[in-house]
Amino acid sequence: MPSRYLSFRCSVPWFILLLEALFLIRSFFCVTGVSNFYSSSNFYPEFQDVNHMVIFGFGFFLMVLRRYGFSSTGFNFLLVVLGVQCSVLVEDLLVFLRVRQNGDGMISLGKAMVSTTAVVISTGAVLGKANPVQLIVMTLVELIIFYMSRCINETLLQVPDHLALMHVHLFGAYFGLAVTSRFPEPPPGLDKNRSTPKSDLFSVLGTVFVWVFWPSFNSILADSKKAAVLNTYFALAVSAVAAFMLSALTSRDGKFRMTHIHSAVLAGGVTISYTAHSIQHPWIAMILGLLGSVITILGSHCLQRCCNPAFKLHDTSGVHFTFGLPAVLGAVAAVVLCVVEEGIKTQWNNLSSLGYLIFVDLGAFCQTISTALITGLITGLILNIKLLKTVHVSKYFDDQSYWEFPHLSVGF
Amino acid sequence: MPSRYLSFRCSVPWFILLLEALFLIRSFFCVTGVSNFYSSSNFYPEFQDVNHMVIFGFGFFLMVLRRYGFSSTGFNFLLVVLGVQCSVLVEDLLVFLRVRQNGDGMISLGKAMVSTTAVVISTGAVLGKANPVQLIVMTLVELIIFYMSRCINETLLQVPDHLALMHVHLFGAYFGLAVTSRFPEPPPGLDKNRSTPKSDLFSVLGTVFVWVFWPSFNSILADSKKAAVLNTYFALAVSAVAAFMLSALTSRDGKFRMTHIHSAVLAGGVTISYTAHSIQHPWIAMILGLLGSVITILGSHCLQRCCNPAFKLHDTSGVHFTFGLPAVLGAVAAVVLCVVEEGIKTQWNNLSSLGYLIFVDLGAFCQTISTALITGLITGLILNIKLLKTVHVSKYFDDQSYWEFPHLSVGF
Amino acid sequence: MPSRYLSFRCSVPWFILLLEALFLIRSFFCVTGVSNFYSSSNFYPEFQDVNHMVIFGFGFFLMVLRRYGFSSTGFNFLLVVLGVQCSVLVEDLLVFLRVRQNGDGMISLGKAMVSTTAVVISTGAVLGKANPVQLIVMTLVELIIFYMSRCINETLLQVPDHLALMHVHLFGAYFGLAVTSRFPEPPPGLDKNRSTPKSDLFSVLGTVFVWVFWPSFNSILADSKKAAVLNTYFALAVSAVAAFMLSALTSRDGKFRMTHIHSAVLAGGVTISYTAHSIQHPWIAMILGLLGSVITILGSHCLQRCCNPAFKLHDTSGVHFTFGLPAVLGAVAAVVLCVVEEGIKTQWNNLSSLGYLIFVDLGAFCQTISTALITGLITGLILNIKLLKTVHVSKYFDDQSYWEFPHLSVGF
Repeated sequence: MPSRYLSFRCSVPWFILLLEALFLIRSFFCVTGVSNFYSSSNFYPEFQDVNHMVIFGFGFFLMVLRRYGFSSTGFNFLLVVLGVQCSVLVEDLLVFLRVRQNGDGMISLGKAMVSTTAVVISTGAVLGKANPVQLIVMTLVELIIFYMSRCINETLLQVPDHLALMHVHLFGAYFGLAVTSRFPEPPPGLDKNRSTPKSDLFSVLGTVFVWVFWPSFNSILADSKKAAVLNTYFALAVSAVAAFMLSALTSRDGKFRMTHIHSAVLAGGVTISYTAHSIQHPWIAMILGLLGSVITILGSHCLQRCCNPAFKLHDTSGVHFTFGLPAVLGAVAAVVLCVVEEGIKTQWNNLSSLGYLIFVDLGAFCQTISTALITGLITGLILNIKLLKTVHVSKYFDDQSYWEFPHLSVGF
Repeated sequence: MPSRYLSFRCSVPWFILLLEALFLIRSFFCVTGVSNFYSSSNFYPEFQDVNHMVIFGFGFFLMVLRRYGFSSTGFNFLLVVLGVQCSVLVEDLLVFLRVRQNGDGMISLGKAMVSTTAVVISTGAVLGKANPVQLIVMTLVELIIFYMSRCINETLLQVPDHLALMHVHLFGAYFGLAVTSRFPEPPPGLDKNRSTPKSDLFSVLGTVFVWVFWPSFNSILADSKKAAVLNTYFALAVSAVAAFMLSALTSRDGKFRMTHIHSAVLAGGVTISYTAHSIQHPWIAMILGLLGSVITILGSHCLQRCCNPAFKLHDTSGVHFTFGLPAVLGAVAAVVLCVVEEGIKTQWNNLSSLGYLIFVDLGAFCQTISTALITGLITGLILNIKLLKTVHVSKYFDDQSYWEFPHLSVGF
Repeated sequence: MPSRYLSFRCSVPWFILLLEALFLIRSFFCVTGVSNFYSSSNFYPEFQDVNHMVIFGFGFFLMVLRRYGFSSTGFNFLLVVLGVQCSVLVEDLLVFLRVRQNGDGMISLGKAMVSTTAVVISTGAVLGKANPVQLIVMTLVELIIFYMSRCINETLLQVPDHLALMHVHLFGAYFGLAVTSRFPEPPPGLDKNRSTPKSDLFSVLGTVFVWVFWPSFNSILADSKKAAVLNTYFALAVSAVAAFMLSALTSRDGKFRMTHIHSAVLAGGVTISYTAHSIQHPWIAMILGLLGSVITILGSHCLQRCCNPAFKLHDTSGVHFTFGLPAVLGAVAAVVLCVVEEGIKTQWNNLSSLGYLIFVDLGAFCQTISTALITGLITGLILNIKLLKTVHVSKYFDDQSYWEFPHLSVGF
């Protein structure tokens, strides 16, 4: 079907060109920020860690499908780079509209990189089902809505900036799920929708890479960086150990299953993302890591057997239990910890202020998740209109639709 | 034999759970350290480098066997994460018993990570022969004994803390060798006990990764970090070049052999680990790197032909010549350099103080190596009792004993 | 032909040994530098990034050929390590001859690492065609000539040190091209001269790795590090996006081509290397990144169809369009930007000083490129004399000529 590909050629490049022109024009007229744009604090090592983790680590991490290695890495790279530029653009717009203060260049770039993680997570849910045009549209829509959701949290609910940013896992996972629910399901007998030992190995190497850099991710904008790093490390360590334990417990014959390891080792880092900077005892971090791992592995069994068939969801790389459930747990844990700490401090006398705290935290959580689900559904509907040339189900999970293969023997 | 695997299921998860419960309880009652636990110095970049090197680099590095990729990476990850928690526990216990002073959280974690390298090295010797239960038991026993050995060196022989820690290669290699000597040898015709070009490639990539981070490893606790970094870099550079030279000299047809490169490029870093912070001239570092590489490659020929068959040793990834021999050389070099330096300073007048220096250094060396060998032998005997369900020889070096393979075509 | 390999054995090791002996002797007699050799500034993180990028990133990056994975990684590693030592030697010689001031150890090592990138780039042009002896000779000759070319730029044309160092891409690319033009062309039907999807994947992972670390590379010696980092990041981001856009535009069916991504994502970093520290507006960096990507992709089409067959060039990994053309563009852009900035500052009154600026910049550029081409041609002629045992064309692009394969089934 040459017409399909020809039309593909007409859309992607011009669309990207338009975006780049927009970014350039923004950058040209953004005179306000220039004075302190380059006078940034010494923020480069942290930024570099997160940059490395998102581009290299997640590029590997998403390489779970047997015939989708090029696209997993390549599109992840494209979307991250586009997403960061788009985030900077939105941030500048908010500065222009006087909603935010003007930050320096590197910190603004760091925040943009963290926001883009939402896109990477959502991509995991539609991996192999969305074509590049759909992915780019999804990136833009998701980043703009995530910025709006953060703004609501920050202005109406007075949530601090770095905490509002940590809703990125929650937002990314549920937005991605809502989007993927509008895509047609792949046929049950499809072979390409599997992993090989080799793709599993790559994917686990990516997971380990992401695991190593997660403390940098959680501490990038925290006030007390050292506490954030240590707590995140302990939570990650416990959840990694628990992942092996639970995998052996729940699988047949007591063997380990790679997909369990793949999703559960990161659960601790996601669970603790809201509270890493404020936890005062390592054992709380360790318990959160353990619970994160438990909810991920139990969730992966429940969701794949009951929930996903019921809702006709096909969540390619399991973002619901890898990022969604631990983030929900983390949000609940943040409320509980905050209330307990405040309660102990005031000796449970000032119950109205406690109620207000609960209201604010739960409000931010509910606002984020409902915004993600509703806008995700709408985005999913938009992505499946004819104009965006949706991929036929038989072409799912295949590099050959998007990449030239000048090789004699084709195969991953 | 489903019974074997069922019992495997009953042991591993509960064992890990018990350990995690212990770590949690320790962490809960460890109130003493909380005050300055989070007020750590800015130690994160160094810690991050070593963390990255041990988990990602050694995960790759150990991937030498054709059918053991999942286990090499996965078990390395599990053991490192367990080992770090266990080290922190032992360290806290020593603080509690007033043997040590209370350090801050991040430095304690950094020391734990360095100690865990002993486990990673020992794992290389029993790679593919020990099951996860055996590996976990070995990890715990080894870390506790290594802490005891360090305590003896520090309290009785007044060795500084960071030098006592650098015995980690020596201890890890000889402990691993002693353990592996108690395992039954694989049958000579076994095919799985080989590498493929692909697994060699992965393994060399891991070696290069470890090589790049080695200066961080050697300087993590040194007083004069910059000297440690520079000397380690020069030693590594010379040993890398010498590895290629000696490989071409000793192999048939003057071709390079990947296993030589694999083991000899790191030799310089191991050799210089005791003296990196104190060497005053780069040429000494370079000569040590050269000697380390020579002893590794000559050792690999001698050991594999003469020593290993005689002692019925099967050292899967060659830790004896990769880490053991260069560490012995490094310990001897440390004594010589220390004596020469002290001798020049006192113009060879104060011979009794020189004798004392030699006694202390050699004492620490002999104590470490004999403790490693004796306790390694005992650990090897304990690991091969019926209770721990030793792997049958025919199941050696195979991922399928430990991992679920839901894939159609199985193969690395 | 055992004689060929036997002679290979006689040459490589002794040659390397001779070099190492030279480095050692230099290091022994270099007493002048010892006093402040170890008192280096805190330069380690930047050095570590560049070290990691050159050894690990480029090792992957060059892995484009199907049967040349061992050699790509291994020889890259060997040449970098040899090259760094050789650079330090040359630098010390220049200090000795009073041409330069004595720097501290780590900065001198950092400069050596950046200079060695020239060798890595040149290696890309002769990848698979030169044997190790030829590669080592090329490394030594190239580094010495690059130092001479830098010296001329610095002493005669008063170019600052870190700018003279940034000619490394230009020099490396054109030196490599001139060398490869003297090698016999591979026969047209050769199969080994192709990539597989797997080798492409590895290569792209290497590219992404290099991409992530490029801001560190461009800022390593810059005065205003933060500006250099931010400008490089923006240029890289735009060129990565533009690479996808142009790849879809220029290929059949609008699909992406991996080799385009492979070469064009780095173009922005190369283009901006001369001006990263001095650009005052992000949009200039973005436009340079875009132009770099455009020139790379258009260049790859033109050169491969017209120029290379005409000149009988065989540029294995396309260094001409990956590094050469963007570096030319960057040099031109540096002149234009410098003149415009100076012109605005002096309100276009002081035209003679403008003319002098243009003369200096163009002089440095022309001197570098002509030195690279002429000495490259001579080096190419020297490399193809009988003494150095040139590889027969039928043995091109094959690991088996240089590495022992003890494996049963051979294949990448």
